[in-house]
Amino acid sequence: MSNEYLFTSESVSEGHPDKVADQISDAILDAIFTQDPQSRVAAETLCNTGLVVLAGEITTRANIDYIDVARETIKRIGYDNADFGIDYKSCAVLVAYDKQSPDIAQGVDEGRGVDLEQGAGDQGLMFGYACNETPELMPAAIYYAHRIVERQSQLRKDGRLPWLRPDAKSQVTLKYVDGKPVAIDTVVLSTQHAPEMEQKAIHEAAIEEIIKPVLPAEWLKNTRYLINPTGRFVIGGPQGDCGLTGRKIIVDTYGGAAPHGGGAFSGKDPSKVDRSAAYAGRYVAKNIVAAGLAERCQIQVSYAIGIAKPTSVMVTTFGTGKISDEKLAQLVQEHFDLRPKGIVQMLDLLRPIYAKTAAYGHFGREEPEFTWERTDKVAALRASAGL
Amino acid sequence: MSNEYLFTSESVSEGHPDKVADQISDAILDAIFTQDPQSRVAAETLCNTGLVVLAGEITTRANIDYIDVARETIKRIGYDNADFGIDYKSCAVLVAYDKQSPDIAQGVDEGRGVDLEQGAGDQGLMFGYACNETPELMPAAIYYAHRIVERQSQLRKDGRLPWLRPDAKSQVTLKYVDGKPVAIDTVVLSTQHAPEMEQKAIHEAAIEEIIKPVLPAEWLKNTRYLINPTGRFVIGGPQGDCGLTGRKIIVDTYGGAAPHGGGAFSGKDPSKVDRSAAYAGRYVAKNIVAAGLAERCQIQVSYAIGIAKPTSVMVTTFGTGKISDEKLAQLVQEHFDLRPKGIVQMLDLLRPIYAKTAAYGHFGREEPEFTWERTDKVAALRASAGL
Ligand SMILES: C[S@@+](CC[C@H](N)C(=O)[O-])C[C@H]1O[C@@H](n2cnc3c(N)ncnc32)[C@H](O)[C@@H]1O
Ligand SMILES: C[S@@+](CC[C@H](N)C(=O)[O-])C[C@H]1O[C@@H](n2cnc3c(N)ncnc32)[C@H](O)[C@@H]1O
Repeated sequence: MSNEYLFTSESVSEGHPDKVADQISDAILDAIFTQDPQSRVAAETLCNTGLVVLAGEITTRANIDYIDVARETIKRIGYDNADFGIDYKSCAVLVAYDKQSPDIAQGVDEGRGVDLEQGAGDQGLMFGYACNETPELMPAAIYYAHRIVERQSQLRKDGRLPWLRPDAKSQVTLKYVDGKPVAIDTVVLSTQHAPEMEQKAIHEAAIEEIIKPVLPAEWLKNTRYLINPTGRFVIGGPQGDCGLTGRKIIVDTYGGAAPHGGGAFSGKDPSKVDRSAAYAGRYVAKNIVAAGLAERCQIQVSYAIGIAKPTSVMVTTFGTGKISDEKLAQLVQEHFDLRPKGIVQMLDLLRPIYAKTAAYGHFGREEPEFTWERTDKVAALRASAGL
Repeated sequence: MSNEYLFTSESVSEGHPDKVADQISDAILDAIFTQDPQSRVAAETLCNTGLVVLAGEITTRANIDYIDVARETIKRIGYDNADFGIDYKSCAVLVAYDKQSPDIAQGVDEGRGVDLEQGAGDQGLMFGYACNETPELMPAAIYYAHRIVERQSQLRKDGRLPWLRPDAKSQVTLKYVDGKPVAIDTVVLSTQHAPEMEQKAIHEAAIEEIIKPVLPAEWLKNTRYLINPTGRFVIGGPQGDCGLTGRKIIVDTYGGAAPHGGGAFSGKDPSKVDRSAAYAGRYVAKNIVAAGLAERCQIQVSYAIGIAKPTSVMVTTFGTGKISDEKLAQLVQEHFDLRPKGIVQMLDLLRPIYAKTAAYGHFGREEPEFTWERTDKVAALRASAGL
């Protein structure tokens, strides 16, 4: 008897207020890393009607005009008119950064603290995941949810649908039969729009020009489309909803197809394992699936603050592995250095590459800077596994 | 051959800066609900060195002194001295609440918008989970991680360990054999402390008086303890780390033992399904496990903004179910009304009960107000399943 179920993931556009906050945080990080890659950065952002607050902990020798970086980010996203939800020229920007706590720094710095190696910047748990549902080895629902909002942004920016505005959310409900996606049951898209647009015209354009071009045609049989189901979405961006850094962590990762450790990414330099070890987890899981060692792979790692070696490493393949999960966990320890400094070196993370990660997902995108998406460990893993 | 692995979850105390933000947001919500339970509330908080920012969207007839509620919450937590990380008396509190967007309100209000029923306050996905690892039907790692920081707070507040300060984090790594927890491999505890305390004395007190009394003795055989592994933790609270509402969503739920939809809870009134449907998901999953229909149960629900009926409902029992997952999904639809208004009525959510949820977990606690922890559907579920 076949087993059927529905599974849902969502994404948001770069104009979503939480993503505005993430992008400002990562633009600040990049600006700092361009001058001083040894900096410690934890840049949090809050944006609301007419207001941006920059807070967190930054220790750096870089000299940055933070207010300018925030305004330029808001401008790049497309908020250049107060009617759109915020105006980069006229919003207030408050700056309240403090330095990294010296008590934390002594645990993290190499050669200081209880563990003389570079310690993890915090305790915590992180997951990595990969599966063979798409060529990028991502779960299909989040993958397609990203493509919809990405296209919304393209058509807005290149002027093909000039009535689109920056804020948007998508949601894809997939039908699975026996563990494989076979159809798209429901697509939800809410997109901010110019006030003069009729909902009927929005519906038509959304379905025909935004959604259908990016979804597999064979999955669109009895698909239900829910477009702007509130009936109106003129007020948007930080005016419609207060945005905070780190509040789209499931959109950032696997759309709920895998667990999450809870740590946010944006605004954090890679001494923070919340970010770097989650990237490493993706790299490990993707290489295992790319090597054909499993169809689905999930890894959990955990750390104690100030200590280099992970406190645990767990690998699961849900019965799809060519070798046992325990053997795989051993292979992982042999082939991947999961200490904070090892991760930074393995993935070359002390570079200003983060602004791009802050919208449309940190994983499953073949951008040249996304070193964690490389499958360069495949041959070594296969050899060690005896395949 | 037996299968062994390590699994880790963490928790934080009420003095952790992200939790300070969550508790202020929920104290604001409760203050509003005490006067006007029909209010729409999305209260976000940011707290940093000497600064608290209150922002978000609130539509209410209640008349609240927001600054006073924020200060009283910080005082209750124990931050009454700037040396501890923030002082409720002398910190700045900025208030920047806006109203709920009228475009959103027309989708959510009953009798208005495209769906005349009360629509979901947002799109999104939510998970519920329960398993038989503890009597409260919670995953063991997060359960014990909560107990450690809860005890840290007790011993601080009742004066038994007067050198403890409000900020703390715990982490528990469990050893599983064949899917069952059998031992505690590692415990991490970082606790803020008075500057004059020696680390040796902190270690001893932490292990003997905080950790051991709350963990099962039979699981403490070869356990490793990592206490304050940075070597010093005097600076803490919002001064050591900027806190934001909704940044401890895995601590709030299942510690990574189940997926998360990404939506935060604190500060949100229950018209926001991020909160109410996650509570309902816990209620469903817990009743299924309590009814003996499965040893582990996970449910995913999803919504479109402005629409009452969920866009998907998926139930998984990981092969532990007494009936098929598809049959269970049908039972769920029969016995639980998962429309936003149905959830609010089923769990009696229009009450000022949220401040308590904002530290030590929203789930697995037998507080009288936590209606989502009741197992009052057990008999009906068993009867329908023919057990
Ligand atoms: C619905 S809001 C969250 C709730 C909000 N804080 C409130 O107080 O009602 C979440 C997101 O939905 C989108 N949104 C805003 N206005 C909308 C509308 N009128 N219709 C559909 N989606 C909307 C935006 O992307 C926004 O960031
Ligand atoms: C390590 S901080 C996160 C990183 C921080 N934003 C930074 O810039 O370094 C996360 C949490 O760790 C705890 N913490 C703060 N200072 C600590 C210390 N000196 N040793 C151990 N834990 C600490 C607090 O609970 C704090 O909220």
